Amino acid sequence: MNAEARLRECLARIEAREGEVRAFVHLDVEGALAQARALDAGPVRGPLHGLPLGVKDIFDTHDMPTAMGSPLYAGHRPRADAAAVALCRAAGAVVVGKTVTTEFANMTAGITRNPLNPAHTPGGSSSGSAAAVADGMLPLALGTQTAGSIIRPAAYCGVVGIKPSFGRVPRAGVKANAESMDTVGGFGRTVAEAALLASVLTGDARLREWTVPDSLRIGLVPGPDWAHADADVAACWAQAVRALAPRAARCEDAVLPPGFADVAEVQAAIQAAETAQALAFEHRRHRAALSDALLALLDRGRAVDAETLAAHRARAERWRREVDALFERHDVLLTPSTGGEAPEGLRFTGDPLFCRPWSLLGLPCVHLPFARGTRGLPVGLQLVGRHGEDHRLLAAAQWCMDRLG
Amino acid sequence: MNAEARLRECLARIEAREGEVRAFVHLDVEGALAQARALDAGPVRGPLHGLPLGVKDIFDTHDMPTAMGSPLYAGHRPRADAAAVALCRAAGAVVVGKTVTTEFANMTAGITRNPLNPAHTPGGSSSGSAAAVADGMLPLALGTQTAGSIIRPAAYCGVVGIKPSFGRVPRAGVKANAESMDTVGGFGRTVAEAALLASVLTGDARLREWTVPDSLRIGLVPGPDWAHADADVAACWAQAVRALAPRAARCEDAVLPPGFADVAEVQAAIQAAETAQALAFEHRRHRAALSDALLALLDRGRAVDAETLAAHRARAERWRREVDALFERHDVLLTPSTGGEAPEGLRFTGDPLFCRPWSLLGLPCVHLPFARGTRGLPVGLQLVGRHGEDHRLLAAAQWCMDRLG
Repeated sequence: MNAEARLRECLARIEAREGEVRAFVHLDVEGALAQARALDAGPVRGPLHGLPLGVKDIFDTHDMPTAMGSPLYAGHRPRADAAAVALCRAAGAVVVGKTVTTEFANMTAGITRNPLNPAHTPGGSSSGSAAAVADGMLPLALGTQTAGSIIRPAAYCGVVGIKPSFGRVPRAGVKANAESMDTVGGFGRTVAEAALLASVLTGDARLREWTVPDSLRIGLVPGPDWAHADADVAACWAQAVRALAPRAARCEDAVLPPGFADVAEVQAAIQAAETAQALAFEHRRHRAALSDALLALLDRGRAVDAETLAAHRARAERWRREVDALFERHDVLLTPSTGGEAPEGLRFTGDPLFCRPWSLLGLPCVHLPFARGTRGLPVGLQLVGRHGEDHRLLAAAQWCMDRLG
Repeated sequence: MNAEARLRECLARIEAREGEVRAFVHLDVEGALAQARALDAGPVRGPLHGLPLGVKDIFDTHDMPTAMGSPLYAGHRPRADAAAVALCRAAGAVVVGKTVTTEFANMTAGITRNPLNPAHTPGGSSSGSAAAVADGMLPLALGTQTAGSIIRPAAYCGVVGIKPSFGRVPRAGVKANAESMDTVGGFGRTVAEAALLASVLTGDARLREWTVPDSLRIGLVPGPDWAHADADVAACWAQAVRALAPRAARCEDAVLPPGFADVAEVQAAIQAAETAQALAFEHRRHRAALSDALLALLDRGRAVDAETLAAHRARAERWRREVDALFERHDVLLTPSTGGEAPEGLRFTGDPLFCRPWSLLGLPCVHLPFARGTRGLPVGLQLVGRHGEDHRLLAAAQWCMDRLG
């Protein structure tokens, strides 16, 4: 199928469903058609040639407004594309529009509904991107994760989400939250499609050129917060272990480092402190334009004193080394993505609790969508890889999906 | 002295000298006066209360253009202040103007001249910031370093430059170069003044509340590139060792990790690859607007393959651990900042060779200006600290300056 035909299919789906799903803050139908026609008229540009792409609205775009989920940036027109957007365009992607983000990719929800049940949140902060891909409006969309902003909406919407290793995708032109954790990634309907996107973002062809391994050494990490996983997640966990353990070279509990029960709390404190720094302009000069929830986060972050922050960072650094050593014994770690299905209501985008550890450690994560909960909404688990071994993680994700799907 | 009076002194110096030094791309005299008067009319805002500040022109400013040393961004008006600028303003700094940067903080020079000899470069990329502080136009100015863009111009102009620990100052709103190394810092005339600025940027009061230690354990690092240091640097090195060794608790050669001779080459390759990612928009869509030197760097960076890059990063990570261990034996490392005085001519901003290792490792650095070379231009050395121990580094820098000045 050529780029224009593929785009027209997406546009038809958007036309039919956007009124209910509300995934976009800005659609550029004419611009996308022009991009698609230009691609059809030329040589193959790269791995994303002709693939329609949604872009979370915290990524700068030179040809579309970038409002960041905040009235402060209403109508804002950046001068340039974010680097990640430029890389996707250079690889042949057709940018269709900007997708709904929570306020500055934090916790205050946008208007997007879960395409599987419009009374439920799609998750956040990459709400529109996950929903658009889940609904078949787009094959691919860009997101970012600081705590759980890719993996959580991927889980709630039932798509593949990938958060690459920290530091491997350029963040130029993406609104910053927490310097030490913000990571650009995205969504696809399959592991293979998400891998195409991740390979372009990282500039690393190995992320699309892997072959599925014969077997896998899986470390099971119900994790320190397992008590917050509900019966749907427990059932999905049991299903995964049943399906994977007999075919895995190893499938056993991974032994977490000492004190790891504090990991979510440490992540949240560092995130708050760094977000208060990154949003200093908005926080100091435009308090009235920020939501109460964001203001509370920023005030909390500003109150974290330097010695506490240094101690948190030292613990994180120690955990990074200790968890890295686990990958000598396990190829990947299997762990919950969320505590359950997407919550009802649109105001709360859900708890990133189960994503916090891996965001803090900067490890690559892939959400595996393979089950349904009691309310018929998606559930699944995430696979966590060794830092810098995103290609192995994606191959392992395919191995798992082949046995779970 | 109140803020307005202090500002007027700076403005008078700028008036007298800017024609020769050419440190600024944009001056906001009226805006600065208004800021100063507002400060004088209110309570003390913070550690920078009433201090005039120059801002390198790759930092976004909501009230001044931000052209990044590139015709591509001529007249560009950002919507917000960079986080670092917002933090300085909130702490009472008076932003006087935007200072000259090389093209996107890379190697293609701006118009600034060395205030000590206008036929010589001030260094780069933070050219205007270093020159303005050296000439007494401003007490403080912001800069950034990816390879040697703070320490080198500080050395060539003879001021204190500080590059804080990587990851400790928010980069939101600063044009990105190399994700894993870009660091916001700045310039002052004394260690104490530079420390004020660094404390505000990091949000860590310890950076201004240290006391000078009684003694110091100094690790000497002539380094793998000592052969590129000229007679001026050798003389300055000998002077420093003569002055410091007898009073230090320890002053001996630090034992560098295996393979460290490759460190500059590894740094340069990672920088090129990451800069090609970060400037993907400009590189892919606006080649004709970029200098030949930048294009060559970006093309080179794009050609670094993923496996080579991964191997370089693995070596860097190993060196980080190994050099970190040196700080068990040495409080600080003393090492050259540059290979000599500022080169003659304005087109070449000098070689960042001696700064590359510490930028790669993300360690905090302070340039100590204490000597003159054979042509009467400044020379000095840099002190490198343990990651996250910027407050100890600054105290050590004061200890050294007390004995060198």
